[in-house]
Amino acid sequence: MGKKLHRRNFFQKFFLSGTGFLLTSAFFRKANASPKDHAPLLSQSGNDTLKTIHNLRTIHGNFSNKVIPEHQLQQVLQASIQAPNASALQSYSIIVVKDRNKMKELCGYQGSALLLYCVDYNRLKAGARSLGYDYHPDGIMRFITGSTSTILAVQTAVIAAKALGIDSLATNGIHRGDMQRIWNMLDLPENHCYPLIALVLGYADQEPAFHKGRLDGAGVIHYEKYHQLTTDEIEEMTRKYDDKDLHLGLNDNWDKDHKHYLDWLFTRWLGVGAGRMDKESQAFTLLKRSQFADL
Amino acid sequence: MGKKLHRRNFFQKFFLSGTGFLLTSAFFRKANASPKDHAPLLSQSGNDTLKTIHNLRTIHGNFSNKVIPEHQLQQVLQASIQAPNASALQSYSIIVVKDRNKMKELCGYQGSALLLYCVDYNRLKAGARSLGYDYHPDGIMRFITGSTSTILAVQTAVIAAKALGIDSLATNGIHRGDMQRIWNMLDLPENHCYPLIALVLGYADQEPAFHKGRLDGAGVIHYEKYHQLTTDEIEEMTRKYDDKDLHLGLNDNWDKDHKHYLDWLFTRWLGVGAGRMDKESQAFTLLKRSQFADL
Repeated sequence: MGKKLHRRNFFQKFFLSGTGFLLTSAFFRKANASPKDHAPLLSQSGNDTLKTIHNLRTIHGNFSNKVIPEHQLQQVLQASIQAPNASALQSYSIIVVKDRNKMKELCGYQGSALLLYCVDYNRLKAGARSLGYDYHPDGIMRFITGSTSTILAVQTAVIAAKALGIDSLATNGIHRGDMQRIWNMLDLPENHCYPLIALVLGYADQEPAFHKGRLDGAGVIHYEKYHQLTTDEIEEMTRKYDDKDLHLGLNDNWDKDHKHYLDWLFTRWLGVGAGRMDKESQAFTLLKRSQFADL
Repeated sequence: MGKKLHRRNFFQKFFLSGTGFLLTSAFFRKANASPKDHAPLLSQSGNDTLKTIHNLRTIHGNFSNKVIPEHQLQQVLQASIQAPNASALQSYSIIVVKDRNKMKELCGYQGSALLLYCVDYNRLKAGARSLGYDYHPDGIMRFITGSTSTILAVQTAVIAAKALGIDSLATNGIHRGDMQRIWNMLDLPENHCYPLIALVLGYADQEPAFHKGRLDGAGVIHYEKYHQLTTDEIEEMTRKYDDKDLHLGLNDNWDKDHKHYLDWLFTRWLGVGAGRMDKESQAFTLLKRSQFADL
């Protein structure tokens, strides 16, 4: 219980300070170095779109005050909805927030604009009602299908923004603290609407200090069927997280108090040892209220 | 109950015939026409990445036998994992399937390769266990956060593939029929692993007959707070779905038996009127088994 509280406080501290991050990016560029290229198949491709993906990076607390031109914001929105979506339902709503104080309260971060992506069937329900149909998009499969369509649209916006030189942060900060505030602040419908991610858009006020890499190979990419990692492969994974040149983890200071990065991750960040859940989360209570849990 | 069964049979028929689709794409090109441009902010941008997004389209039953060069498949995979991901956990597994019979059985479609994306914490659990930690990524918030990271990676693959001239279909066909087959066929772990989407990659054997558009404006994009559609806006939405030039829906033949596209959608495709769920879905039962439902 003590460790669980510790973790909660840790998150809360990060949330309140606005310097924390949960969604990390692929690449940070080091200003005065020639960093290892973690994705040479992209950087050496000569393909603009692959290079855009190669250059993706997440900006955390340090967006500048520079404003995104309205035309470019509209390009990002138009791109976002081109993503594939289940049954052509577009079962999402995108709420554009430019009020910087509201952004901070919603997710802990501020940029030029925030796009709040919700899985949302209410537009369709209104259409059904107007024609005399009683449409109940209840249950977990509607949630999974709807949230899939929603997140496909999020990443299309992330890549379109980067193509326009706009940085981003996709954060689940909306799920920290009292989640009910999101419904209250944005007048979200109680049923069949659930906020999934806040996409903060803007410009970095300074270049990040280092590249971020990605774990690849065994355990991430499997061929023909699921591969359970061998003892050797698990040790190799632990070693990779410890290799600071790869920048796979959330920080580089784990070795002050821990033998391995994963020791830091599991004790300090994830707070394991606290055991399984001892009560239902607010997230689940709200999922049930939204009618997205079965029965 | 009758209508519910009807809907189930409808889905099953589509699934078995392999001609159905649940995830639709942004754009289909008409061979001998000058179709309306649904996303001029992208096509006229002069930006290669925005044009790639503009050209996204979903291929359904008609992938050719052409094989994706292995180098390009690896580019798509390397691109996919550059997506942002929560806490740098990469809480997903990507299973590459090239066996065409297996593809068909998994999702009802066949292309050159299938990437099966699962939210998956088992690699991290193995790392924790090796260091003596008992890591329980239980509950709906781990599922939502993990599935968000997973779907961000999916759409990065979709866009990277398109940049290389490779078409795709992101389908939840894996959730139709007996879902347990996915675990059986791919040796998926029972806990903390859940298959979300099958991304079929390949080449169209013929160009789709028409463009697909997207609903935009009120009810899709909101400003500063959620906007409930007015009666006029709902009628406008219904009218847009009925405008065949916009190609917003799943088919163009709805007007044989229905007044509006939405009549067809709600009666024939979504099967409303069958009322709320009367028993727990297999999807939810498996979500509970995976430990991703609270308590």
